[in-house]
Amino acid sequence: MVPHLITALTGPINELEQRVLDSMPAIERWFRLEWMEHTPPFYSSVDIRNAGFKLAPVDTNLYPGGWNNLTPEMLPLAVQAAMAAIEKICPEAKNLLVIPENNARNTFYLSNVAQLQRIFQAAGLNVRVGSIDPAIKKPTKVELPTGETVTVEPVVRSKRRLGLKNFDPCTILLNNDLSLGAPGILEDLHEQYLLPPLHAGWSVRRKSRHFQSYEEVAKRLGKLLGIDPWLINPMFNKCGEVDFSQEQGLDCLRTNVDALLAKIRKKYKEYGINEKPFVIVKADNGTYGMGIMTVRDTKDLDQLSERTKAKMGASKDGRQVHDLIIQEGVLTAERINEAVAEPVVYMMDRYVVGGFYRVHAERGDDENLNIPGASYVPLAFAESTRLPQPGQKPGASAPNRFYMYGVIGRLAMLAASYELEATDPEAEVYE
Amino acid sequence: MVPHLITALTGPINELEQRVLDSMPAIERWFRLEWMEHTPPFYSSVDIRNAGFKLAPVDTNLYPGGWNNLTPEMLPLAVQAAMAAIEKICPEAKNLLVIPENNARNTFYLSNVAQLQRIFQAAGLNVRVGSIDPAIKKPTKVELPTGETVTVEPVVRSKRRLGLKNFDPCTILLNNDLSLGAPGILEDLHEQYLLPPLHAGWSVRRKSRHFQSYEEVAKRLGKLLGIDPWLINPMFNKCGEVDFSQEQGLDCLRTNVDALLAKIRKKYKEYGINEKPFVIVKADNGTYGMGIMTVRDTKDLDQLSERTKAKMGASKDGRQVHDLIIQEGVLTAERINEAVAEPVVYMMDRYVVGGFYRVHAERGDDENLNIPGASYVPLAFAESTRLPQPGQKPGASAPNRFYMYGVIGRLAMLAASYELEATDPEAEVYE
Repeated sequence: MVPHLITALTGPINELEQRVLDSMPAIERWFRLEWMEHTPPFYSSVDIRNAGFKLAPVDTNLYPGGWNNLTPEMLPLAVQAAMAAIEKICPEAKNLLVIPENNARNTFYLSNVAQLQRIFQAAGLNVRVGSIDPAIKKPTKVELPTGETVTVEPVVRSKRRLGLKNFDPCTILLNNDLSLGAPGILEDLHEQYLLPPLHAGWSVRRKSRHFQSYEEVAKRLGKLLGIDPWLINPMFNKCGEVDFSQEQGLDCLRTNVDALLAKIRKKYKEYGINEKPFVIVKADNGTYGMGIMTVRDTKDLDQLSERTKAKMGASKDGRQVHDLIIQEGVLTAERINEAVAEPVVYMMDRYVVGGFYRVHAERGDDENLNIPGASYVPLAFAESTRLPQPGQKPGASAPNRFYMYGVIGRLAMLAASYELEATDPEAEVYE
Repeated sequence: MVPHLITALTGPINELEQRVLDSMPAIERWFRLEWMEHTPPFYSSVDIRNAGFKLAPVDTNLYPGGWNNLTPEMLPLAVQAAMAAIEKICPEAKNLLVIPENNARNTFYLSNVAQLQRIFQAAGLNVRVGSIDPAIKKPTKVELPTGETVTVEPVVRSKRRLGLKNFDPCTILLNNDLSLGAPGILEDLHEQYLLPPLHAGWSVRRKSRHFQSYEEVAKRLGKLLGIDPWLINPMFNKCGEVDFSQEQGLDCLRTNVDALLAKIRKKYKEYGINEKPFVIVKADNGTYGMGIMTVRDTKDLDQLSERTKAKMGASKDGRQVHDLIIQEGVLTAERINEAVAEPVVYMMDRYVVGGFYRVHAERGDDENLNIPGASYVPLAFAESTRLPQPGQKPGASAPNRFYMYGVIGRLAMLAASYELEATDPEAEVYE
């Protein structure tokens, strides 16, 4: 089930979308059976690109920020899903500690933290926010633009537990993607639930591993839908040992970019698509849209400016980037007031709880939109009169065009669950 | 978690409500732990009476009708909860057969069936409606006042399965309370899931058994809240072998009414409540508000009109009523436009998904409202600005006054789950 949100799509429903809509009962059943075998990530958000002829995830975030971009109407769904997640993982939970990003003075980011606090409070938990940033030495109350406040407190670590002064949580919710690696303060907390687990952090995750899992599940869903999995799967290659500052490893990059562009060209020809292929080059373990570039031709790589090289070489926390993923670029056909837009789908446990458009007026339809200047347009729920009416002729009521985004979002979430199983350091190995 | 719906309550929050609101994390945790041990009914609705000083369920329906009274805004919650319920019970489900009440020509009732169809379709199932009424011999399309249509088809029974022509469901959802007893056509369906199970029907259920289970869970919740369980529990007695037409068994009724009125009087005195005690006499296995009367004094029983006797003696399907429950009457302090109102809470699986007020302009605050002439006023979701704001001073934002109804509704649902365990003919007995 995916909430019926109004998308920006106004054109006719194409073949791919129609196939997805027609297969809803089969798709939902397939997901239900998958969740019997696999544990969904605690929460996630997925950036999706819809080229019309092709629909694919381009990024899957297991520490989603931006919850504040969900509308108040979506909150009850998030609360109900949070309740289901807590019930399954830690029903005895009473106190929940949210660990935000370090240096969390950004009120936009803190609005996200306040929203998470609101969701889990409404689900019936005592929720407090504790920073693992050593710079936070005392409780710090921050006023947000909405007038609400968030209090960020310093965490207190004992031998076996992490908490706050006078607050001993049984569950810890990370909203910090651990780009710098899992800090010692979060290790050996065997008495408390740590959600998501440490190996979901970017120090362990690799985009290439995620998209490898995604390819696997996309093939299976493609078979179910009777479609070429390429229509929902972005192809990719990867390169290790690239150093932009020393211009090392660029040959590997050129070769792979060239090979992938050729593969896309072939697919475009097969489908009669009259667009220019492009690839996205980004850090294999990066995050937050740093170091991402669009490459339409290998020649682009010969003319990199010093600025681009510096940007590509460093990720959010100033680490050097060496491993790159070269991903098939997927155009986005969606526009909000003529600005290029891409849908972002939010999930809690197995449930799609909402979404919004990321919009950037100054970017093209083949560029990353997750950079400063982006704005967020929440999606509204369809009005009652537009809900599908049982017993009416097909087409008599508006279809849920958000549904396909919910399917692709959950497919990426399923891939993440395969990925986390494969990288779980405590996994039992059956041979 | 309970959705934040705007109730009709405008007065100050009294001690009982404040206690419930303050205990939210403990209450939610308690429910989570209960659901680890007990299986909630598939779906349920609970009629609640709020006297201000006391808050109690008066009827728990395990085949709830009236889903059409939920607002479109509540539907996503119902769909998500339906998805959770299906996932837990029958994840492999693809086709769902809804079995409505017999003689379902009432378009108001069929609007409820259409709403259930819509909810389970949105949860990703193929849903069709099949009647077990022998009078339905061919697919019958009924147009509803909203313009939508429902098609009721005759069921087809094979040796081991129940379905429709060209429709083989793996799951059957009963929306028929089986007052006349479980018909043979529903027996021995061991290959299909039948929800709720047959022993949830009124041919097996007894109100007195339900309220006995309710008393048990109310005592435990009362202990958790540190309150007298009477504040959330309606006392009751029962009488068997009453025959109004022959005036048999009326002595038993008088004695029990008198005893219960005395107990209520004592409680009112203890709490300084200046109201006239009353009891409600109704069929122990009745349904649908037939045969329900308010008794304020045993003298009332000496002056029963022939009409009342006839009404009390027959239930919905014309059966004779012999077993009666005498239940403590709970005043309702809620009013909508000066008409007496009582909240009805709807649940799917463990989740409160919505509610509305049942309103009757011509009835008093000590009378049953579930009779012809009642109307239904849906509750609206609180606006974003009224949601509790984390970090703000208590009282700075409006509390969720629907929360207490969600707690009592779920407590009655928990009682029903104890009740169904106790009456399960296939239960394994551990000694």
